[in-house]
Amino acid sequence: MNRNDVTEKIISTKVAKGLQWEAIAKKVGQSKEWTTALCLGQMTATAEQAKVLGKIFGLKAEEQKWLQVVPYKGSLPTPVPTDPLIYRWYEIVSVYGTTIKELIHEEFGDGIMSAIDFSMDITREADPKGDRVNVVLSGKFLPYKQY
Amino acid sequence: MNRNDVTEKIISTKVAKGLQWEAIAKKVGQSKEWTTALCLGQMTATAEQAKVLGKIFGLKAEEQKWLQVVPYKGSLPTPVPTDPLIYRWYEIVSVYGTTIKELIHEEFGDGIMSAIDFSMDITREADPKGDRVNVVLSGKFLPYKQY
Amino acid sequence: MNRNDVTEKIISTKVAKGLQWEAIAKKVGQSKEWTTALCLGQMTATAEQAKVLGKIFGLKAEEQKWLQVVPYKGSLPTPVPTDPLIYRWYEIVSVYGTTIKELIHEEFGDGIMSAIDFSMDITREADPKGDRVNVVLSGKFLPYKQY
Amino acid sequence: MNRNDVTEKIISTKVAKGLQWEAIAKKVGQSKEWTTALCLGQMTATAEQAKVLGKIFGLKAEEQKWLQVVPYKGSLPTPVPTDPLIYRWYEIVSVYGTTIKELIHEEFGDGIMSAIDFSMDITREADPKGDRVNVVLSGKFLPYKQY
Amino acid sequence: MNRNDVTEKIISTKVAKGLQWEAIAKKVGQSKEWTTALCLGQMTATAEQAKVLGKIFGLKAEEQKWLQVVPYKGSLPTPVPTDPLIYRWYEIVSVYGTTIKELIHEEFGDGIMSAIDFSMDITREADPKGDRVNVVLSGKFLPYKQY
Amino acid sequence: MNRNDVTEKIISTKVAKGLQWEAIAKKVGQSKEWTTALCLGQMTATAEQAKVLGKIFGLKAEEQKWLQVVPYKGSLPTPVPTDPLIYRWYEIVSVYGTTIKELIHEEFGDGIMSAIDFSMDITREADPKGDRVNVVLSGKFLPYKQY
Amino acid sequence: MNRNDVTEKIISTKVAKGLQWEAIAKKVGQSKEWTTALCLGQMTATAEQAKVLGKIFGLKAEEQKWLQVVPYKGSLPTPVPTDPLIYRWYEIVSVYGTTIKELIHEEFGDGIMSAIDFSMDITREADPKGDRVNVVLSGKFLPYKQY
Amino acid sequence: MNRNDVTEKIISTKVAKGLQWEAIAKKVGQSKEWTTALCLGQMTATAEQAKVLGKIFGLKAEEQKWLQVVPYKGSLPTPVPTDPLIYRWYEIVSVYGTTIKELIHEEFGDGIMSAIDFSMDITREADPKGDRVNVVLSGKFLPYKQY
Amino acid sequence: MNRNDVTEKIISTKVAKGLQWEAIAKKVGQSKEWTTALCLGQMTATAEQAKVLGKIFGLKAEEQKWLQVVPYKGSLPTPVPTDPLIYRWYEIVSVYGTTIKELIHEEFGDGIMSAIDFSMDITREADPKGDRVNVVLSGKFLPYKQY
Amino acid sequence: MNRNDVTEKIISTKVAKGLQWEAIAKKVGQSKEWTTALCLGQMTATAEQAKVLGKIFGLKAEEQKWLQVVPYKGSLPTPVPTDPLIYRWYEIVSVYGTTIKELIHEEFGDGIMSAIDFSMDITREADPKGDRVNVVLSGKFLPYKQY
Repeated sequence: MNRNDVTEKIISTKVAKGLQWEAIAKKVGQSKEWTTALCLGQMTATAEQAKVLGKIFGLKAEEQKWLQVVPYKGSLPTPVPTDPLIYRWYEIVSVYGTTIKELIHEEFGDGIMSAIDFSMDITREADPKGDRVNVVLSGKFLPYKQY
Repeated sequence: MNRNDVTEKIISTKVAKGLQWEAIAKKVGQSKEWTTALCLGQMTATAEQAKVLGKIFGLKAEEQKWLQVVPYKGSLPTPVPTDPLIYRWYEIVSVYGTTIKELIHEEFGDGIMSAIDFSMDITREADPKGDRVNVVLSGKFLPYKQY
Repeated sequence: MNRNDVTEKIISTKVAKGLQWEAIAKKVGQSKEWTTALCLGQMTATAEQAKVLGKIFGLKAEEQKWLQVVPYKGSLPTPVPTDPLIYRWYEIVSVYGTTIKELIHEEFGDGIMSAIDFSMDITREADPKGDRVNVVLSGKFLPYKQY
Repeated sequence: MNRNDVTEKIISTKVAKGLQWEAIAKKVGQSKEWTTALCLGQMTATAEQAKVLGKIFGLKAEEQKWLQVVPYKGSLPTPVPTDPLIYRWYEIVSVYGTTIKELIHEEFGDGIMSAIDFSMDITREADPKGDRVNVVLSGKFLPYKQY
Repeated sequence: MNRNDVTEKIISTKVAKGLQWEAIAKKVGQSKEWTTALCLGQMTATAEQAKVLGKIFGLKAEEQKWLQVVPYKGSLPTPVPTDPLIYRWYEIVSVYGTTIKELIHEEFGDGIMSAIDFSMDITREADPKGDRVNVVLSGKFLPYKQY
Repeated sequence: MNRNDVTEKIISTKVAKGLQWEAIAKKVGQSKEWTTALCLGQMTATAEQAKVLGKIFGLKAEEQKWLQVVPYKGSLPTPVPTDPLIYRWYEIVSVYGTTIKELIHEEFGDGIMSAIDFSMDITREADPKGDRVNVVLSGKFLPYKQY
Repeated sequence: MNRNDVTEKIISTKVAKGLQWEAIAKKVGQSKEWTTALCLGQMTATAEQAKVLGKIFGLKAEEQKWLQVVPYKGSLPTPVPTDPLIYRWYEIVSVYGTTIKELIHEEFGDGIMSAIDFSMDITREADPKGDRVNVVLSGKFLPYKQY
Repeated sequence: MNRNDVTEKIISTKVAKGLQWEAIAKKVGQSKEWTTALCLGQMTATAEQAKVLGKIFGLKAEEQKWLQVVPYKGSLPTPVPTDPLIYRWYEIVSVYGTTIKELIHEEFGDGIMSAIDFSMDITREADPKGDRVNVVLSGKFLPYKQY
Repeated sequence: MNRNDVTEKIISTKVAKGLQWEAIAKKVGQSKEWTTALCLGQMTATAEQAKVLGKIFGLKAEEQKWLQVVPYKGSLPTPVPTDPLIYRWYEIVSVYGTTIKELIHEEFGDGIMSAIDFSMDITREADPKGDRVNVVLSGKFLPYKQY
Repeated sequence: MNRNDVTEKIISTKVAKGLQWEAIAKKVGQSKEWTTALCLGQMTATAEQAKVLGKIFGLKAEEQKWLQVVPYKGSLPTPVPTDPLIYRWYEIVSVYGTTIKELIHEEFGDGIMSAIDFSMDITREADPKGDRVNVVLSGKFLPYKQY
């Protein structure tokens, strides 16, 4: 057994039972973004969270333990994603990558925006011309230091 | 002459003169995100915008014309970016890609978040534990249609 | 179970029963292009469509549910397709890619032809020198906007 | 000197003079699709066509000769194109590739749609919800033969 | 079940029974080159041919049906083949590729040698200094057309 | 100076003067296939052949010397060729690779068809349904030996 | 002019003048590791440091400005380095990567060792069986947070 | 059975029993770094060590034998690792690779730091601003020799 | 069943029984290098050799037949090998590749060293500073011929 | 100026003057293998050796200094070499890689054959059936150590 088996069981059960990520997240007590990433094999659960998910998805004790093991992260099967929704994000990095770099350095100097001390919030933005996906990313700025 | 030559001249002049993207954007009359992407060879200028940039960077008539030609987009030299700041964004797509997909589909159904009818806003978020980079992405939801 | 299992069952049953995509599409009530893409794991069915396909291919309730889940899209095993029929399409993109780009921009300005708000129609074009494949692609033009 | 030098001169001159592909094609006496592909280094000109283009772009005798040499074809710098407009076409091949294959084989049997005995027509399709790009591809069906 | 399963069964049975491609081809009534390609999952059989092969390899009705379905072609596991015999052919394309291109264009003008309307004949060429493999490739010339 | 500079000069001069490979080969006294490969930087000339080519293309003494140096072979810019004519050959290797392997082994046992002790002959094959390209490849069979 | 030009001038001057990184670092007032990375185009200098380097390497005012611009980082020409010394480091990541992951997670829980809030110290470790390279890496642990 | 099966059993058992690498290493009598690498399929055990691990993980005689067979090394599924913790190490090689090369050559001359005659020590470094991961790498310097 | 299954059975049995390649080779009556390559799925056995190996490894009649079928060669899972021992050989080709080319051409003219009419002999070379691996490669020189 | 410029000058001069590596090596006082690798930019010269080469190839003081700088090693333009002579060596690693690994481990245990403490000797082996290339590789065995 490995983490991937647990992830597949979670997804399979979610489809069979017709569950929603948002409702699952509420039971776990965390944001829908973090909770979904956890269920998709990218984050690490506490024992308590694993128990909650165990109940929702019918996970055995050993499967719950795997949720508490830090996974090998990376959710995509290829370096350039083929799925159109995910590709658009890759495209944003490709087209705007140097722009993002310039503007963060202009404001903060040399360093990076953390992808670890990081949170993400995805919401619907109502718009008469067609609703929009609104995403807020927040990452701690980490400066390169001289030594 | 091609667009790349113009981009290099803009960057080179910016360094030599010590200019700031935010100030340049104000003169152009657009956001700093769009204006920087334009200057880095990813967007297309109107004749008037090209003239403004021409003054700032000392661009000749032909160079200004190139700013008005739609460029071959994509700002990165490799499919997986090596620069740490840009890589963190690639990592977000890699680690959270399937999460983003699940949550947008849960809210909107099958479709994508547009990277064309799209805007981005990068700001400093003050934080006593260390300031954060706050980025708001807004993209129109485009539904897959049956036909 | 996952979507791929359902796709394989559909293809396998189609061969065993000697079915035709066009006839299947008529029962689903959509075009043969969209319906085939759905059956090959690229599109998302409504509950009713899933039921129709369930009858045709002998799909169980859970398999029908998977047809209603948005799939991870992309139908090819390699970035450059090896199958000669599909490669010819890749070749058209490779040889005519910059031409298509120039002509759409000349007519519409900066933006793209949508692959989401999109339809395709494949027909036989009779020709005394040898019949031709006639394909009509229709995609909404999406303009890049300044912000 | 090589064909690429001639292509770059053509593009550069087009920008400097503000020419349009459609007008150029009319002078050459062929479609805008074929003529643009020729100018972008993908097709081969007759002596007469080379002369016409020579006049338009100020090409010397040797440069005109290069237009009559069959070029090494392929217009994209990477196997997976980064430019959003061209990528959408790659995405169509990726998402619909197996669908196209199934439907052509269902109609014609084993074989391919030729990318050589081929033509393409790109037009604007007026639409109250937003104009569309309409593209008609016509390729001769070439059957695999037993021997 | 898929075509690959049928191919593996054919190869496995051939080894177990000690059959020869040439003898199989005679029963099928086609060349050894085309028949072998068919058995290796690259070509499409008629119902009658499938029946003949069914008898030779003990294929069930459903397996025979798969032989009549157009396969996803391409027989190699990697873009650059590692097997020395097949690599030598890749090397011929690599070393002589531009030569072949020049000479076909010199004789025929712009166009290609078809790999669809194509046949191949492999024979032993006796030679006192060591026998040679003699291969005749015949492909229809397809001219690029202006439109 | 390197061999590539000489190759470019040869090609450039050939276009400028409107020469033909077949006529060049006759002066060199070898086949058009070998001579073209030599001129394209893949083979090695004798001093005498270099002198003949020197006269035809106006090569200086040092350039003639480079023709006598064994080149780093491989004439294609990418592992999978983008040019349609050359790609068809790659496709033949991809689709028929395992077939070629089976049939050569069936006739000769374990070993390869040499790409070094090798010759190629490209001719026009008249055909009322459209002329064909006829190519004869002849390579010495080299058996794997036990030791 | 770009940063790469400055890097090449620095390296070229260092060879011509026979300078040592350790001595340069002392003048800059930082460690030899950080200073070398700065000179090789990976770090960002203060105005004062740029002035010191300007004196050492004869850099003009504009070149000194480039040292103060955040560079596009990544010092290797290929994803897998070919240079044996650097490859050994890649090999350590390849062979010990999962080990490092397990042990850091065992000690710290889910998170990473920062490559930004990071320092490195390379020294000679005397050893009678042959001196050793001793490298101390120190990176802040950054925990993944739930949100 | 192969080494990979044994590795998976070890990891699976470790999760099920909640074991710690440090404790396992103490029983084996070697460092936690080497022992973990051994358990993850990268190193080779003595018969005695295999027996100790056999007891801890419930390995059968044949599984213990596999621990004594030299494995095919390399623990990562892709050339560029996607896991953020391991990627940071790859990034260090990418950003500092040329720096490390320069400084080792400055101190030792031409040669490499061995990844075979090598040891690694990972510890927690207490720090009021946030604890750090401290890693000491020690590799024998191996000089290139002239011959 | 395929050759790979036989290879895995041979390796698995070798570990379980604690056999040595050298002893196996003696029974086969060929060198340890060729025999090991045969057992690892790279060479082709005679019926008699297959019988000998059948006895040693407990292979059934059908498995013995597979040893007599020419395999698809190439023993490495990635183009650049990750295993350190095998990588060093790749590195020798990378670092010394052009040197080997120059020296063989200097001695023999244009051509190659055969990897088919080839043998290899690996022995221990005693050395007070540490024993060495001594490898003798012998390959027939095959000259490129003009035609 | 960089090492690559010096390498190109050396090769260019060697062709122009018609020099031989073996004769150059004698003047340098080292083997032809090491000396050629040095001249091709893979090894590092002493001041004296640089002076000798400086005389032979007409190198200026600064160029001689570059020969004494440790180069970024790796002499091939692609991971899989296209040149047939060098490819055969890559093929030996591909076909015999696992065999070499097995036999060295059988004789020496876990460890590698060094590519640093390494020498190579290439000679002509007379053979009535065609002369052979005989290559002796000698690399120190480096054992993996437990710690």
